[in-house]
Amino acid sequence: MRGAFERDLTRAGRGARRALAEAVRAAVRTGHLASGTRLPSSRQLAADLHLARNTVADTYADLVAEGWLTARRGSGTLVADRVITRPIVARAAAEPSDDTCHHLTPGSPDLTAFPRAAWLKATRSALAAAPDDALGYGDPRGRPELRAALADHLARARRVYVSSEHIVICAGVSNGLQILSRVLAGRGAKTVAVESHGLNSYCGLLEAAGLKTLPLPLDAHGTDPVPPAGTDAVLLTPAHQFPIGTTLHRDRRTAVVDWARRTGGLVLEDDYDGEFRFDRQSVGALQGLDPDCVVYLGTASQTLAPGLRLAWMALPPMVAEEAVAAKGQIDSCEVFSQLTMAEFITSGAYDRHVRAARRRYRDRRDALVTALAQHAPQVCVIGAPAGLHTVLGLPPGTQQRVLQSATRQGLKVAGLSQYRHERSLTVMADAFVVGYGAPSDAAWPKALSTLMRILS
Amino acid sequence: MRGAFERDLTRAGRGARRALAEAVRAAVRTGHLASGTRLPSSRQLAADLHLARNTVADTYADLVAEGWLTARRGSGTLVADRVITRPIVARAAAEPSDDTCHHLTPGSPDLTAFPRAAWLKATRSALAAAPDDALGYGDPRGRPELRAALADHLARARRVYVSSEHIVICAGVSNGLQILSRVLAGRGAKTVAVESHGLNSYCGLLEAAGLKTLPLPLDAHGTDPVPPAGTDAVLLTPAHQFPIGTTLHRDRRTAVVDWARRTGGLVLEDDYDGEFRFDRQSVGALQGLDPDCVVYLGTASQTLAPGLRLAWMALPPMVAEEAVAAKGQIDSCEVFSQLTMAEFITSGAYDRHVRAARRRYRDRRDALVTALAQHAPQVCVIGAPAGLHTVLGLPPGTQQRVLQSATRQGLKVAGLSQYRHERSLTVMADAFVVGYGAPSDAAWPKALSTLMRILS
Repeated sequence: MRGAFERDLTRAGRGARRALAEAVRAAVRTGHLASGTRLPSSRQLAADLHLARNTVADTYADLVAEGWLTARRGSGTLVADRVITRPIVARAAAEPSDDTCHHLTPGSPDLTAFPRAAWLKATRSALAAAPDDALGYGDPRGRPELRAALADHLARARRVYVSSEHIVICAGVSNGLQILSRVLAGRGAKTVAVESHGLNSYCGLLEAAGLKTLPLPLDAHGTDPVPPAGTDAVLLTPAHQFPIGTTLHRDRRTAVVDWARRTGGLVLEDDYDGEFRFDRQSVGALQGLDPDCVVYLGTASQTLAPGLRLAWMALPPMVAEEAVAAKGQIDSCEVFSQLTMAEFITSGAYDRHVRAARRRYRDRRDALVTALAQHAPQVCVIGAPAGLHTVLGLPPGTQQRVLQSATRQGLKVAGLSQYRHERSLTVMADAFVVGYGAPSDAAWPKALSTLMRILS
Repeated sequence: MRGAFERDLTRAGRGARRALAEAVRAAVRTGHLASGTRLPSSRQLAADLHLARNTVADTYADLVAEGWLTARRGSGTLVADRVITRPIVARAAAEPSDDTCHHLTPGSPDLTAFPRAAWLKATRSALAAAPDDALGYGDPRGRPELRAALADHLARARRVYVSSEHIVICAGVSNGLQILSRVLAGRGAKTVAVESHGLNSYCGLLEAAGLKTLPLPLDAHGTDPVPPAGTDAVLLTPAHQFPIGTTLHRDRRTAVVDWARRTGGLVLEDDYDGEFRFDRQSVGALQGLDPDCVVYLGTASQTLAPGLRLAWMALPPMVAEEAVAAKGQIDSCEVFSQLTMAEFITSGAYDRHVRAARRRYRDRRDALVTALAQHAPQVCVIGAPAGLHTVLGLPPGTQQRVLQSATRQGLKVAGLSQYRHERSLTVMADAFVVGYGAPSDAAWPKALSTLMRILS
């Protein structure tokens, strides 16, 4: 203890009383002086520190008055009983990075394939080109450069028709749904229909805004998206249902847009995996069928990386106004990543990266299908050849055993049932979700062979 | 019209019927074909486009069925009456960038002085050093590298005592207040005391969470921060009151912390301009007096740029838990800017930049004070020598004339009254706020001379 005091006092130079007080406070705060610790007498400490005894005595008195110390007749000066700053247990938001584990949980792309050099190059260009006022408080819709680049890209790649005026940038699809929840609640909406299987956290966001979620039926053709009367909006993943992997049937695409036109309801289209179709040209976005009643949500989380926290909404004009009001007066998204993304898109780097990623994930899916045919023919692959994950159907009664075996082998996969809406009437057969996007190229073969060992 | 059709059809190669339909839809959607426009007859268009007449006729029939076109006997095929995508009027979130204007509105630093080269250098280092999993869904508290750098920096520069575990990164102070509002509302809090003058938008955020805001009295010594019984929290700008510019008096610092200790209330310390004291070492943060009852909010918006959307909260452990829950499961802040900021701080670039900025703004404030003494001695400078703005007190009854004259001369300043809480009992004398931080070095002399012309 004395060492720390002396260092601080020497640094202080003068104002020894204040410096001593501060050193004691700091030591108490950080737990270096525990509650109940007896301090040296003022005489002794003064001698040790080459200070006047009064300086130390006065400091002790100050600290007693402030509540840091207590003075008890007969037992000297003690550190008071104080709540010190306790570390909360660190919570790993992602899985612990354990090298012996194979991560095949869905929702993440291969982070080792993030195009760091190309991204840095785009950042350099974006930083050089950015007008000074781009660094100020921004338009709540997001940077105009990015919205213009997206309007063009989305029309080309996803057949989304929107003016850049009606695009709103947000910090991930979750953030977009938060904004849309507030828009819906502000319109007096009560109920949002959702797919029987999906991310529970999305339902949580809707419910946090006071909306009720209502699971849609699921049949052999996938989700039946036309909700019952009284529903205000429908949240769908038409391109590649998350997690089941089906593509919304043509007739049902038309039917849900007709429902929205007829009732004034809104379709919220989460374009999950929309850029990752392997067998054919991606099906265009639902939004293209009627930009006036479909809200389109896209993101860079699967195509690039979730850490960018970049997503975008293409909105009907009225909804755009309301979304801006719900988002707040100022943009909440960092400007350089927006400008970098704009540069990344307009330079063609984004298209190149998506094409390379599509090849990577198609190859992995092909390897998975081939391996299953050879080693585990009893397992069936569910869903369209697309995206970063697939559902594997298991022989009845075997799910529990497979998941337990996966855990023992250090293989992280997700049971399908964990994505089921709690009020859904649909019970899927035994199945689990394999996210083949997550491993690195180096880790993938081992992860695949471990999976085969478990299934065969 | 024909040109666009032909291009699209040529690109299509085959599937002419589908391509033609799509081209018509696109032209209607984008307003290139206005409602009521008569289309060429199917015979004529077929000849023009070298298509079979049936192809065109069938396409027209499809589009009539879909509602894009109407067929009226005798008047041919017309574009139907459709809601097309209307641009909403672009809203400039910042002031319109009009070169003839001098911006002396408070709240913004000199954006032309943003250290682009140093920031890019830090980005390069950060991108090279980032572990792959940093690119995934992150800890809701923000990147550990940035929290560790901040814990160290804040202790040194602002005497804030916090473990990096209890720092939460947020997208600006507004976003931090949104999170804290939800924490307070979740605790059952009802009332937050605020300063008599401040940002109305902050009150709006608190009120949006269902909290009532209560203005504190203002006297000759500044804000009296101890709120009436029943108040759950107090929001203050102790270092440099925004906008009045006073520094919270020593006795009042102690008093409000004592209030919090005694009642279990929370002090929300918005450390506005905390790093920009010109006449002396900055007063340490209130948080240092008792980290268990003060929430500290800091930001890079004034020291670097608002567009970074980077702010941080140092929280008592219990509040940290609740803030993480209120923020949501995943981080909403972009990862590279967090890593860049961490590198910027630990490399010393941040300290260097803040020192240079402090000199720049001190020189501007000195020039303002000198010019006023010479040209407008009737105007008094209110507030401590600190920060990016000052309040100028005017002779009674002259505010209206000064503000009108400023508008005529293209000088943007803000009347003090626009920051007054609507229920505040305090009425300040005629005064206005001059943000000397906003202009570029090149624009500042002209802005200053224009201000003097108005005041003299």
